Amino acid sequence: MTNPNNNESMDDTGSASTDRRGFLKAAGVAGASAVAVAGASHGKFGLAPITPAQADTISPPKLSEKKWWPSKWGADDQAGASNHITPAKVLDTVKWIKEGKVYKLGHNYESTMPLFGKRVFTLRIPGSPTGGPFGDNRLVYHDEFVTAEIGQVGTQFDGLGHIGIQLGADGDKKEMRFYNGHAAADFSDTYGLKKLGVENCKPFFTRGHLIDMVAVRGRMMEAGEEITVADVRAALQKQNMSEADFKPGDAIFFHTGWSSLWGKNNDKFNSGEPGMGLEVANWVIEKDLCLTGGDTWAVEVVPNPDKTLAFAVHGTLQTKYGIYNHENLVFDDLIADKKYQFVYVFTPVPMAGATGSPGVPIGIT
Amino acid sequence: MTNPNNNESMDDTGSASTDRRGFLKAAGVAGASAVAVAGASHGKFGLAPITPAQADTISPPKLSEKKWWPSKWGADDQAGASNHITPAKVLDTVKWIKEGKVYKLGHNYESTMPLFGKRVFTLRIPGSPTGGPFGDNRLVYHDEFVTAEIGQVGTQFDGLGHIGIQLGADGDKKEMRFYNGHAAADFSDTYGLKKLGVENCKPFFTRGHLIDMVAVRGRMMEAGEEITVADVRAALQKQNMSEADFKPGDAIFFHTGWSSLWGKNNDKFNSGEPGMGLEVANWVIEKDLCLTGGDTWAVEVVPNPDKTLAFAVHGTLQTKYGIYNHENLVFDDLIADKKYQFVYVFTPVPMAGATGSPGVPIGIT
Amino acid sequence: MTNPNNNESMDDTGSASTDRRGFLKAAGVAGASAVAVAGASHGKFGLAPITPAQADTISPPKLSEKKWWPSKWGADDQAGASNHITPAKVLDTVKWIKEGKVYKLGHNYESTMPLFGKRVFTLRIPGSPTGGPFGDNRLVYHDEFVTAEIGQVGTQFDGLGHIGIQLGADGDKKEMRFYNGHAAADFSDTYGLKKLGVENCKPFFTRGHLIDMVAVRGRMMEAGEEITVADVRAALQKQNMSEADFKPGDAIFFHTGWSSLWGKNNDKFNSGEPGMGLEVANWVIEKDLCLTGGDTWAVEVVPNPDKTLAFAVHGTLQTKYGIYNHENLVFDDLIADKKYQFVYVFTPVPMAGATGSPGVPIGIT
Amino acid sequence: MTNPNNNESMDDTGSASTDRRGFLKAAGVAGASAVAVAGASHGKFGLAPITPAQADTISPPKLSEKKWWPSKWGADDQAGASNHITPAKVLDTVKWIKEGKVYKLGHNYESTMPLFGKRVFTLRIPGSPTGGPFGDNRLVYHDEFVTAEIGQVGTQFDGLGHIGIQLGADGDKKEMRFYNGHAAADFSDTYGLKKLGVENCKPFFTRGHLIDMVAVRGRMMEAGEEITVADVRAALQKQNMSEADFKPGDAIFFHTGWSSLWGKNNDKFNSGEPGMGLEVANWVIEKDLCLTGGDTWAVEVVPNPDKTLAFAVHGTLQTKYGIYNHENLVFDDLIADKKYQFVYVFTPVPMAGATGSPGVPIGIT
Repeated sequence: MTNPNNNESMDDTGSASTDRRGFLKAAGVAGASAVAVAGASHGKFGLAPITPAQADTISPPKLSEKKWWPSKWGADDQAGASNHITPAKVLDTVKWIKEGKVYKLGHNYESTMPLFGKRVFTLRIPGSPTGGPFGDNRLVYHDEFVTAEIGQVGTQFDGLGHIGIQLGADGDKKEMRFYNGHAAADFSDTYGLKKLGVENCKPFFTRGHLIDMVAVRGRMMEAGEEITVADVRAALQKQNMSEADFKPGDAIFFHTGWSSLWGKNNDKFNSGEPGMGLEVANWVIEKDLCLTGGDTWAVEVVPNPDKTLAFAVHGTLQTKYGIYNHENLVFDDLIADKKYQFVYVFTPVPMAGATGSPGVPIGIT
Repeated sequence: MTNPNNNESMDDTGSASTDRRGFLKAAGVAGASAVAVAGASHGKFGLAPITPAQADTISPPKLSEKKWWPSKWGADDQAGASNHITPAKVLDTVKWIKEGKVYKLGHNYESTMPLFGKRVFTLRIPGSPTGGPFGDNRLVYHDEFVTAEIGQVGTQFDGLGHIGIQLGADGDKKEMRFYNGHAAADFSDTYGLKKLGVENCKPFFTRGHLIDMVAVRGRMMEAGEEITVADVRAALQKQNMSEADFKPGDAIFFHTGWSSLWGKNNDKFNSGEPGMGLEVANWVIEKDLCLTGGDTWAVEVVPNPDKTLAFAVHGTLQTKYGIYNHENLVFDDLIADKKYQFVYVFTPVPMAGATGSPGVPIGIT
Repeated sequence: MTNPNNNESMDDTGSASTDRRGFLKAAGVAGASAVAVAGASHGKFGLAPITPAQADTISPPKLSEKKWWPSKWGADDQAGASNHITPAKVLDTVKWIKEGKVYKLGHNYESTMPLFGKRVFTLRIPGSPTGGPFGDNRLVYHDEFVTAEIGQVGTQFDGLGHIGIQLGADGDKKEMRFYNGHAAADFSDTYGLKKLGVENCKPFFTRGHLIDMVAVRGRMMEAGEEITVADVRAALQKQNMSEADFKPGDAIFFHTGWSSLWGKNNDKFNSGEPGMGLEVANWVIEKDLCLTGGDTWAVEVVPNPDKTLAFAVHGTLQTKYGIYNHENLVFDDLIADKKYQFVYVFTPVPMAGATGSPGVPIGIT
Repeated sequence: MTNPNNNESMDDTGSASTDRRGFLKAAGVAGASAVAVAGASHGKFGLAPITPAQADTISPPKLSEKKWWPSKWGADDQAGASNHITPAKVLDTVKWIKEGKVYKLGHNYESTMPLFGKRVFTLRIPGSPTGGPFGDNRLVYHDEFVTAEIGQVGTQFDGLGHIGIQLGADGDKKEMRFYNGHAAADFSDTYGLKKLGVENCKPFFTRGHLIDMVAVRGRMMEAGEEITVADVRAALQKQNMSEADFKPGDAIFFHTGWSSLWGKNNDKFNSGEPGMGLEVANWVIEKDLCLTGGDTWAVEVVPNPDKTLAFAVHGTLQTKYGIYNHENLVFDDLIADKKYQFVYVFTPVPMAGATGSPGVPIGIT
């Protein structure tokens, strides 16, 4: 069964890269909505007024039986779980800085990164130099000129306007709902999202906990392999940490080893990934964390063991709880130093109306 | 006298925006190099080998009588003054976090920002939504698609590949020297700088000192108005701070009030600016700071009181000392709270081979 | 009355450019759909299935009381009136080449062109040179790097995926209909239109007739000033031409003088324009022409004398009849030579899935 | 021997695409200039004026023993061989239109095209729709947003600012010469070439002759396989044509079969190509043609049989004679119809300061 409404793009036959949508199709993810819509008849209008084709009642999508708004941060909130970062939280967090060591937790951005689907990252230096010489001091300068899905390539931070759930009929943007119930009809604009842009997110300065699954498994995890709550507990024990260490507003990170494919086997890297599933997602919600992160491109298990679901953790944590996600991180140095608890610091680049942000967070110990 | 080699672009007659190069020309900045070159004759070759036209000796540019490399961080260094950020420095810095309050010190990025010359910032949302619905959970998503001189627009951080000095003849990239003597011939590449890219800069976590010149002057400073060392001292006294507070590796910031023009009078904002001159630059060098910043687009006084100089502070601090510069910052909240000393935290987006970085730093008190 | 669903973008307060959407709003164009939708209540769902909010019958939009498909070129056609260009038509057309003189009928592309709304045209030369020297022959080369709404800036040709009519509820892409009834739900894809892309248009080689309205009026026409059928007839008489000269598949062009503002008063140029209204559009349909063109950015009168209509000629000729439109043309040389009939030659750049094409047509006499 | 000045970019390790510069290196193309420069010592300056390092006489590059300017079209000419297209030429050409059949002679543009090196072609549809509904007629519209080396991807036309020869020392733009002796120092600008931009080229309407090498060889030609003058004569005979058919200002096209790899084996397509060498180039010069074209990405044999040469035909025809080149054309339909002589019609998109143009030419019979 294929989804006739999947807005699928023209085939990239010449490209070895994996397409998120192609992937979904290949993985057998398909829409029940296809059934709901397929029988509808359209376009039978002449001189008379028409009745919308989707007049039948529409069943809610899987996992969305209940409305999830207003959020606990208020009906107008656009900052989600970044609201956890209060002065008290910062003061509690700063206690974890004992060595003063700073770790960069991401990749450099370059055109050879694994890029999902048709996303691009291009950088050009205009002119050489771009300008000058100027003055008797003969100053010259370079610029760079970048075109990219800039918040959704490489090490990337998902803002709350990135992921939503379609509750209504196909194309009904009034029932295409995002965090806090904001509807695409109200904010999805050609020139930047009018709500939930990443500029609404507050800077992060919080306690980060790293789960080293490679140590638990004794190997790199594989695509489609789920991290369970039992795995988290096993890792904590192995790392001499405790579930009680997690406080509201903290962040959790997963090292699966998948990042070892980065730039070496981009096709495999993009073909799926290990990661958390809904069980851990619910544990994250229960712990009231502010952010998840990982060394994979989605942090969640892909494909989901339940083949009818697509990016179910994204649709749960981000859309329903405003809990952020930081993708394509790098933990190698932390692990080499056996540092599993650190201060996570990150401020999204506040591009008005953007869906995400580039930038590597730092971990401070 | 105009510089025949100034690589000047086609006129933007229809545009109200100010061009950096146009500005320079209007301000009377011109090259002595014009004289040196104008008399040379070219192209008179037939069958015989030719002799380069610039065979005469070339006088060093103003302010560059001495070579400035190797740097104190080593002959191969590409990180400059970010090397100051050691664990000891971080531990000393963290003592300044007493309240846990986090300030965002920059502007949002949008196409209506004041943009220099022909630089652009464009953001589009491809599709609406960009993809989906997928799965029985009917997930949808948005991306953004950005084209910009991304490290040189809005709140921006200058990397060490941005500013250089032309020591040799026009076009002689072997004598177009940047920080640590790196030559354009060796690293200025069409697809990204091969050295001195902003990815080489280490994350900043250091002590920041704010100089509120609006309080000193009792008004917004004007374009071409220089901040002197006496001004800095006056501000320190007014703010109950001391010159002795400055330690090696600290950062200094200047609030001139110029940012009040942002988005309100972009033409005036771009037409010049108040800022430090070479006197304060030398004071910064003496104090061994790692970074300067300000609420203006260059942090230094423009035009320079010495009309023969173009961006002389850039060419001194960045090119010769590897001291970084953070432009178009916002200090209004810090000033409202009378907070002049804070922890400055910033990690450049490590775009390989870029000349600068977007992103707003935070100040923590 | 304002349209709450008008997908309006963030204000460009710093920009002097006119926004198509801002223009529409300022001109009092508003949607009756606003009324139809405003009373609807949404989002009241809990555990039960929801009923789409737009379940009421929807009146067809003004001018779209009847469905306009299938087209006369067949139910699957995507080429529209370019189907007129048959070998017989070419052979008939070629007779008009008597002098062998070739006229370029468009503007150069540059960033200083009047650009509508937030559209951009940026060109950079990456590197200088972009590559080389290579080989013992020491070859060097330049590229250009362009970012633009490339088919919708400057001299531009509208493809049939550009303009559609919303017959159903807001966001209902199944009833967002374009030429030949093609629905946005079926072809509006993030990475290029899957139907009606400009690559489906056939090359034009046909007879072009120029109407010089400046000669008729004795002055440049003004914004909002409509060209009537009587005007067309007056021009034909003045130019010693006859209505009988127009054959099926021919093209008609309007010179209003508006192009004299190009690059000189871009704000006025964008603020509206003179042009044909629905009367002439119907005459064009009756004559069975293949294309209209003009020295303005829309070729039709803006604002429309009927303030409830927005780009009504676009929605009639292009959407319903597949008759193409070529905008921002230049006729000065033809007029100087008193040449009002010529061979119009143009081949759209076949960017797969694009809505329009750059490129200047030629006129041959 | 490798060329230390080859401005080579960072490795594209993750990419299967071929890099023009990588190709050159792999093919053993290296610069004698490397020898000339390698012994020079630089940067030994202190307080004293410096002498340019390249003060020794420099031997002219291979094939450039004589200066090639001024051009026969005048010392200020920027239009090159497009000057051939006079009214008389058009009138002579039009006689070849006997059937009225129009052939499109190029590929569609899409991201899956074989792209050279790091060049890109990206197309996005901003929003869906981009704007609307507007008015009581509820008009909606789509735009496209394209980022590309637009004149140097896909079916492409090389302008005269694309290819030059470095006569002087590395980086000496005053001796980096293009068509008619124009020097990079005078026109190579960050925001568009100030001379030799493709907008200077006149529209083509001329007689085109197609050489079907697949018929001559009985197979697709292979990379590095040169088309000789004897081959051209063999093809003419086979096609019942005569060398006397070629008149000054005509165009010649080569069908090698290489285009059969397009989109099917992009890596092989980019890895080299069959084409003309210097022998045919000189024949083209002797015949005084205005343009060459082919179904390959460079029209000339790559690698050149003389391994010391890089794109020697480009550097001869374009740089020295202003004879244009149209790449990645498609002749399948012409060949299927056994049409080897036709009217070639093409007008470059006049992007000011661009190095080339997109767009497919038409052939009319």
